[in-house]
Amino acid sequence: MSRKKIPDIVIGRLPIYLRALMHIDSYSQQVTSSHEIAEHLGISPAQIRKDLSHFGGFGKQGTGYNVDYLREQLQHILQVDQEWDVALIGAGAIGQAIVRYGGFHGRGFRITTVFDNDPAKISRKINHLVVMPADRLGVTIRQMGIRIAMLAVPAEHAQGMAEKIVEAGVEAILNYAPVNLVVPPKVYVQHIDPVVGLQHMTYYLEPKRDPGMTTDTE
Amino acid sequence: MSRKKIPDIVIGRLPIYLRALMHIDSYSQQVTSSHEIAEHLGISPAQIRKDLSHFGGFGKQGTGYNVDYLREQLQHILQVDQEWDVALIGAGAIGQAIVRYGGFHGRGFRITTVFDNDPAKISRKINHLVVMPADRLGVTIRQMGIRIAMLAVPAEHAQGMAEKIVEAGVEAILNYAPVNLVVPPKVYVQHIDPVVGLQHMTYYLEPKRDPGMTTDTE
Repeated sequence: MSRKKIPDIVIGRLPIYLRALMHIDSYSQQVTSSHEIAEHLGISPAQIRKDLSHFGGFGKQGTGYNVDYLREQLQHILQVDQEWDVALIGAGAIGQAIVRYGGFHGRGFRITTVFDNDPAKISRKINHLVVMPADRLGVTIRQMGIRIAMLAVPAEHAQGMAEKIVEAGVEAILNYAPVNLVVPPKVYVQHIDPVVGLQHMTYYLEPKRDPGMTTDTE
Repeated sequence: MSRKKIPDIVIGRLPIYLRALMHIDSYSQQVTSSHEIAEHLGISPAQIRKDLSHFGGFGKQGTGYNVDYLREQLQHILQVDQEWDVALIGAGAIGQAIVRYGGFHGRGFRITTVFDNDPAKISRKINHLVVMPADRLGVTIRQMGIRIAMLAVPAEHAQGMAEKIVEAGVEAILNYAPVNLVVPPKVYVQHIDPVVGLQHMTYYLEPKRDPGMTTDTE
């Protein structure tokens, strides 16, 4: 099976199914259904069944899915049945919040090194991690064989830092800076941009009723 | 034109086009093309033209798009040619990073109120905002007519808080907690979950070459 042939939009939903399954699992329930997963997600049961069918059958007609089995299979498909070392670039407010974030636990990632170029931050500890100087970034990432990085630097430094970490061997970047990055085609980039999520929703909201404002797009 | 008839996946890309246009605009360039936008985004020029065609023609064949005009039209379509008040629930590490985040400026949103239930945080200032007690949340959101909230509370409190803010009139929630929320169908939810972005990318990475590990999904 080629990993490239399955639509990327389907791949993007697998982590969301996995998150839902981990929630269902926490109630020690053995069997679930596409309907139950759908209730958690606002995605139709038919869509969920179709997405999962790309990877073969995970359940028998009428008997539902075994929660543990489906969870393990999704973890294996997404390659998170192992833990990946992640480098964090930037130890400002966002970087510190990332280190302290509880949502990474048991989901396949461990932040193993943090960098910043601010002398006031270097050598300080965030949880158990000591902030390293940014000029050590290339050599450290290469030595540790780190392939994934989170970029939490100001927008104006994001492109430059992206080039440095890619040169050091990073293949996947989670970018918190509100700018698009230009990287070689072999490098994967995902964005964490709260405004993109907010603007996606305001499209659907009823127009504000401020006096004098236009109230529709056409 | 009905807002519901355009595929949601297309709507989800408009904020990304808008972000790219704001970047192009910053170089004081008057005209752009689907090819240039595509270069910034790793989305094909054909896809961009097709997405934009849902909203009518924004450019003449062969002459490209006027950057300012296209930007203004996208802002209007997404209803961010105005500023929305946003309530932030949770003043922990993530909440503080959100308040300090520079990426909201000029993109349609202003955080106007912050809540927490921790007495150590209440009444403290984050930038110019004073943290309010969570038990004032319902009445404040209703009085201010706030329709959008960001939820940055621990996972175990997210569902309960979501129910409270929805009851107070919130129609759109940007959820930073790593759990799915169950809300009425009229309420929009988007998630900020770094692990979803990371897992999306690890799917595509070459398997790790640890000894004894399986190296493919089939």
